[in-house]
Amino acid sequence: MEDKWQEAYEFAVEVARKAGAEIRKAGDSEIKVNTKSSSVDLVTQTDQRVEKIIFSALKGKFGEGCHRFIGEESTVDSCVLTDKPTWIIDPVDGTTNFVHGFPFVAVSIAFAVNKELEFGVVYSCMEDKMYKARRGQGAFCDDEPIYVSDVKEIKKSIIISEHGTDRSPEKVKKIFSTMQKILCIPVHGLRGSGTAATNMCLVACGAVEAFFEIGIHCWDIAAGAVIVREAGGIILDVNGGPFDLMSRRMVSANNEIIANRIIKEIEIFPSPRDDGKPQLE
Amino acid sequence: MEDKWQEAYEFAVEVARKAGAEIRKAGDSEIKVNTKSSSVDLVTQTDQRVEKIIFSALKGKFGEGCHRFIGEESTVDSCVLTDKPTWIIDPVDGTTNFVHGFPFVAVSIAFAVNKELEFGVVYSCMEDKMYKARRGQGAFCDDEPIYVSDVKEIKKSIIISEHGTDRSPEKVKKIFSTMQKILCIPVHGLRGSGTAATNMCLVACGAVEAFFEIGIHCWDIAAGAVIVREAGGIILDVNGGPFDLMSRRMVSANNEIIANRIIKEIEIFPSPRDDGKPQLE
Repeated sequence: MEDKWQEAYEFAVEVARKAGAEIRKAGDSEIKVNTKSSSVDLVTQTDQRVEKIIFSALKGKFGEGCHRFIGEESTVDSCVLTDKPTWIIDPVDGTTNFVHGFPFVAVSIAFAVNKELEFGVVYSCMEDKMYKARRGQGAFCDDEPIYVSDVKEIKKSIIISEHGTDRSPEKVKKIFSTMQKILCIPVHGLRGSGTAATNMCLVACGAVEAFFEIGIHCWDIAAGAVIVREAGGIILDVNGGPFDLMSRRMVSANNEIIANRIIKEIEIFPSPRDDGKPQLE
Repeated sequence: MEDKWQEAYEFAVEVARKAGAEIRKAGDSEIKVNTKSSSVDLVTQTDQRVEKIIFSALKGKFGEGCHRFIGEESTVDSCVLTDKPTWIIDPVDGTTNFVHGFPFVAVSIAFAVNKELEFGVVYSCMEDKMYKARRGQGAFCDDEPIYVSDVKEIKKSIIISEHGTDRSPEKVKKIFSTMQKILCIPVHGLRGSGTAATNMCLVACGAVEAFFEIGIHCWDIAAGAVIVREAGGIILDVNGGPFDLMSRRMVSANNEIIANRIIKEIEIFPSPRDDGKPQLE
């Protein structure tokens, strides 16, 4: 009874692995066969196939009536978190990387009940690394426990962020201005894998101290959020307040000292929420 | 006779693999055991041990008298390329990544004769990927032939650069200004692995279209340069002129169209050459 969602958790890991194998196969064969000029179509095909694998598996097992489904695709419920058991899914996180063969592409599956994230699974399928965490039970990579870095001095940190896909001058200017200020604190370095889900796992396993972004969606970060927290890290809003999954912005970090130091430098720009509610600040 | 350097090439691959295994072992055991506060000492120890493995192997086999050695360490010859057979080595490229456990760390070994690069070996040891190329014989990753991307439209490209370790405001400003202009061409994205050697291999295997940097050293890029060229790519100076290994600056790309488009945006800043000669433009 206490372990009500254990079966769902284990099933999610299985589905993520299967979906990741499909992505890897497409990357190995189809991308090499097709020229890159047709890469957009290719991605659409792979996305659709992987989505189908994940959604038909989950809906087949857990029933569309009982569970809700939120994700980056066509056949899902609205982006409003209710008390119902809800799956939050990104079948292919890092589509640009996938098209180019850049080695970070992830399947991201999270599960929330009563508006609380219960577990998260991120399968970094090109690296073949399975990250997972269930609330209160720790975080794992390939079944080994993982922990955030214990660095407390910002000057000894590596920070991850992304430039996003929006190229509007005002946003790009703020993104670069923030990155430049953080680099010059100074920190050891800035990185970016090109996928939010993998970036959060890099925080969770201690490879970097923090990852922040404005403009990401709930399905990019829901699974990663459980993994970061269970690895000992924290998630905050970019304004320093509590993290809101639907707000399209967050700072995930190994500890509060690093998170708050980063937050001091972040230049916030407007990003409409996933659930259509008014954005804070 | 024609295959005069084949033995040296094969030996370099073997030495790189051995050195990489040593780095991986240190990353697995020592970094987890030690706290990160002692990471500087740890790196020094690993660097020294790996350097010793590489240099004693090569010097033992090829003799200090006959061959010259250029690298990022204490017991090497001056950074002037002569006609003598010359090894150009970075035992641990990506030291910051190594300290943090960020998954890109490379062993880079190149070999030049008559001032021309004869072969290059880059072992990305955390990923366990062996990149290698010999002049005129193609480029390989784990013995599979690799080729640069065939993308000709800059708007379909991913570009890599790095922020470097120098935090002087004038340089940082130019680096960010260049990146921002390139992002807004627009391109698909910007990335950075944190190691020049791996970045060049990502160009060589078609995962990204170009990598440019000012401030890198000859030992960071010598091996990668052979691999990029043999994979079908090109290397130019950041001013569009011919590549000069000792100039501490370069653009490596899948083709001239992409390279020249990037070059138009690069804001050049002064970087003293590796060989002490006056820098061009």
